[in-house]
Amino acid sequence: MQLSLYDTTLRDGAQTEGISFSTEDKLRIAQRLDAYGVHYIEGGFPGSNPKDREFFRRAAEIQWRQARICAFGATRYKDRDVADDPTVAALLACETPAVTIVAKFSRFQVETVLETSTDENLAMIRDTVAHLKAAGREVIVDAEHFYDGFSQDPVYTHACVEAATEAGADWIICCDTNGGALPAEVSEATRAARAWTTVPIGVHMHNDADLAAANTLAGVAAGALQIQGTVNGFGERCGNANLTTLIPTLQLKLGHQCVSPEQLRQTTELSRYVGELANTPPSAFMPYVGLSAFAHKAGYHGSGMRKHAQAYQHIDPATVGNERRILISELAGRSNIAERARGLGLSTDDAGVSEALAKVKDLEERGYQFEGAEASFELLLRRLRADYHSPFEFVDFLVLAETRGGREMLSEAMVKIRVGEEMFHTAAEGNGPVSALDHAARKALERFFPALQEVHLVDYKVRILDSASATDASVRVLIQSTDGSREWGTVGSSTNIIEASWLALKDSYEYALLENGTSSAGRCPRGSRLEWPQ
Amino acid sequence: MQLSLYDTTLRDGAQTEGISFSTEDKLRIAQRLDAYGVHYIEGGFPGSNPKDREFFRRAAEIQWRQARICAFGATRYKDRDVADDPTVAALLACETPAVTIVAKFSRFQVETVLETSTDENLAMIRDTVAHLKAAGREVIVDAEHFYDGFSQDPVYTHACVEAATEAGADWIICCDTNGGALPAEVSEATRAARAWTTVPIGVHMHNDADLAAANTLAGVAAGALQIQGTVNGFGERCGNANLTTLIPTLQLKLGHQCVSPEQLRQTTELSRYVGELANTPPSAFMPYVGLSAFAHKAGYHGSGMRKHAQAYQHIDPATVGNERRILISELAGRSNIAERARGLGLSTDDAGVSEALAKVKDLEERGYQFEGAEASFELLLRRLRADYHSPFEFVDFLVLAETRGGREMLSEAMVKIRVGEEMFHTAAEGNGPVSALDHAARKALERFFPALQEVHLVDYKVRILDSASATDASVRVLIQSTDGSREWGTVGSSTNIIEASWLALKDSYEYALLENGTSSAGRCPRGSRLEWPQ
Repeated sequence: MQLSLYDTTLRDGAQTEGISFSTEDKLRIAQRLDAYGVHYIEGGFPGSNPKDREFFRRAAEIQWRQARICAFGATRYKDRDVADDPTVAALLACETPAVTIVAKFSRFQVETVLETSTDENLAMIRDTVAHLKAAGREVIVDAEHFYDGFSQDPVYTHACVEAATEAGADWIICCDTNGGALPAEVSEATRAARAWTTVPIGVHMHNDADLAAANTLAGVAAGALQIQGTVNGFGERCGNANLTTLIPTLQLKLGHQCVSPEQLRQTTELSRYVGELANTPPSAFMPYVGLSAFAHKAGYHGSGMRKHAQAYQHIDPATVGNERRILISELAGRSNIAERARGLGLSTDDAGVSEALAKVKDLEERGYQFEGAEASFELLLRRLRADYHSPFEFVDFLVLAETRGGREMLSEAMVKIRVGEEMFHTAAEGNGPVSALDHAARKALERFFPALQEVHLVDYKVRILDSASATDASVRVLIQSTDGSREWGTVGSSTNIIEASWLALKDSYEYALLENGTSSAGRCPRGSRLEWPQ
Repeated sequence: MQLSLYDTTLRDGAQTEGISFSTEDKLRIAQRLDAYGVHYIEGGFPGSNPKDREFFRRAAEIQWRQARICAFGATRYKDRDVADDPTVAALLACETPAVTIVAKFSRFQVETVLETSTDENLAMIRDTVAHLKAAGREVIVDAEHFYDGFSQDPVYTHACVEAATEAGADWIICCDTNGGALPAEVSEATRAARAWTTVPIGVHMHNDADLAAANTLAGVAAGALQIQGTVNGFGERCGNANLTTLIPTLQLKLGHQCVSPEQLRQTTELSRYVGELANTPPSAFMPYVGLSAFAHKAGYHGSGMRKHAQAYQHIDPATVGNERRILISELAGRSNIAERARGLGLSTDDAGVSEALAKVKDLEERGYQFEGAEASFELLLRRLRADYHSPFEFVDFLVLAETRGGREMLSEAMVKIRVGEEMFHTAAEGNGPVSALDHAARKALERFFPALQEVHLVDYKVRILDSASATDASVRVLIQSTDGSREWGTVGSSTNIIEASWLALKDSYEYALLENGTSSAGRCPRGSRLEWPQ
């Protein structure tokens, strides 16, 4: 059975405590979700959040592979004409092909929270769906509190389903809004919804009783054709149904069709990418995609694994792009490094792999981490080769940040950089110390390497490493850069945040000067700077 | 139905990547579990781990309220007399009232991993159970790979159940060792086990498909009388069934008897206690017990919650010792702010709420975010009150970060701070610019406020806000601090990372000087510094 996948990471996922996406983040995540094969991407709630309108404006300019972008809103306010409702108007103004509206399907909620009559609520559903259909939109109705409503007063919940059906809804999504339903309840209520309407049914679950996955599966078994959820299970309170664990279960264990096998292999990468942008790394213990999901500690299991790969794992981790790890063993490390080197077209012998592994282990002990910093890892491999020369050499820097007498902060930097045989000593201001460093370094570098003018940073993240010593602890800086066509990540680590930033920036410039995976060594060999414009 | 609770945090939980308990930790956790009402506590695997023998020696001296301590081991080795088996002997040497042995209940595992005959495996089960029973122990048989075995060759799995039954086992525990079973499979196989034997059945689930909770419930529905699991779902790979989420579901939603209502209210505390000792704080999003489990961000939900407490929560958080939290964010409105102010004992009229809301919106536009920074939010509210005076005033600072001629980075800071009418001008070094600022500020402040000596930072996070302008963009710094008894979060935002850090640090010091929610105004009023030691 082909299932329809509806992602709400950008709306319900953004309700997660501690998560706040920029418009840029949202656009990048939406493009990843499109590539992964998601069918609907809920972009935000334009009625409540002006930032979300900017997202929809920019999303309209993107050519999506298959995903339909949805704006999220609610039915019209009570006792108001739908044509005069500002939030419904905001929804239409997003110009998305699909819109999702939340509507109450529970008598208790209507009477106690909405404080209106059950008839008015039915009219709100009918009016809003009909109005949006008349505007030519695909209309998805999120039936809020569907399961609680069904268990309290199924007759009224049935009336809500009929109202949405008659008004022309394209989907009715049964929501366990409070997240407390049990699989048997979900099964019975979803079956009832199927019997009440010819409109296709979907399910939207929350994880408040640790059952979002099981409830989604129960919904699908009862005939739901759409599953709603988020990457990594992000979402308010305990989170939403986790698409990154549900899609593998549905596809690998239950034979449903969700995405292609190639897309399924991107699941782990998708999870980690979204976790990075959310600055909330996914739990190592997350099923299928977690760093520990196929990690084996017990010697007992480890030796079983060597006898037969499936002895202690329920699926082949490669199918979801994850990998088995035998802890304490360095085997995994060696083969990964050799594989990555081959992928970069860098031939490696055993000694080369050993040297790289030793370097990685040394840097990891100093706080480096190469996940999300593939460019720094590639530079590490290249720097170990005799024929590689860095295109520039960083010598000294000084950074100063100052505020005096209530005036605005001042940040200045001086840097000394050698290119070929020439030494540059430059100075610049910036909005902050890292920006001052960036400006001063570019003053020196861009004369030689005009390509760096195209390079700019898209993200900058800092994580503390040894929290016991607080501000004296090491920090790891991850920088994401782009030159307009490629995007790459670099890392730096130090007890000094300026130095860590500088190390990551330096790798970013150096990687930018590698051309299509070829060492830039030939582009600015030592002593031959005259090839370059002054 | 009274269910038997079997905790394996100290054995299977200790297989979690990154977790290693000392004997002292294990004894403290076991005592908590006993107080919480767990019936069996699996203490360790004496055959593989000498540290575990020390645990059993000391556990034997403790008067347990109701828990029975179990030593964990395996059936005898193949082709060996059980009386000569060293691991079985190690098990008996622990002198525990109950012993748990793992035995293979899958033909595939016996033939491929154990590499012995199916008959020898049956003999291993029979001999070991009979030997331990003859020594007077309660014998719990962990039927490893029960569900996979059942689906591959139920006839052989049935023979294993019969062998354990005939030899006198007290419990047979159906294990989903690889964690990949689905609830429908669990239901069918557990029902079969019940039909095959009169010995009571238990279930032991792993979470590799995000279904450990649902599978445990399916097992109980099929007649299992014992559930095995761990606190916080600790365990190898994706973890074990999570007792801290399962017990509330079984007791509050399904009417089973697990622990007393008083004990149930200790669930949140148990989760956090064990997380502390494991040095692996439980996920904020963990159902029932997580910090975010009952946290509400959307203004929409927030206002619903005030109309009716159950509008957006599936249970009363007090039943598991947790509490509701209303988060402050751009999605939140007036009503959330008023409620937070009331919670802090700060009376507010409508004008006060409007002023606070305007301030929050202004700061949020400048990159602030008060989620996770409740201390900064409380200071914001207090600072709007006429009777509040900050205990100190920050005037100027200068920070310098430098590297010269390959020497180590140098970071120095000068700060000017006014306390009362006195001005302090101090300087200090640090490992980085923020640490230098922290040291210089403390030089001035700790003379007046010795309490700050107890304050240290536990986490420091940086997030870039408008990635389009990269290193010129705003950054938000979140700092988490503690004084040994309380923990609080503060926030600062600026285009300058040093300034953003400084603003968050300043709030952290200022919050530390508030006493039990009372404004510190009286502690250092302007012009009355003589009350304080010089």
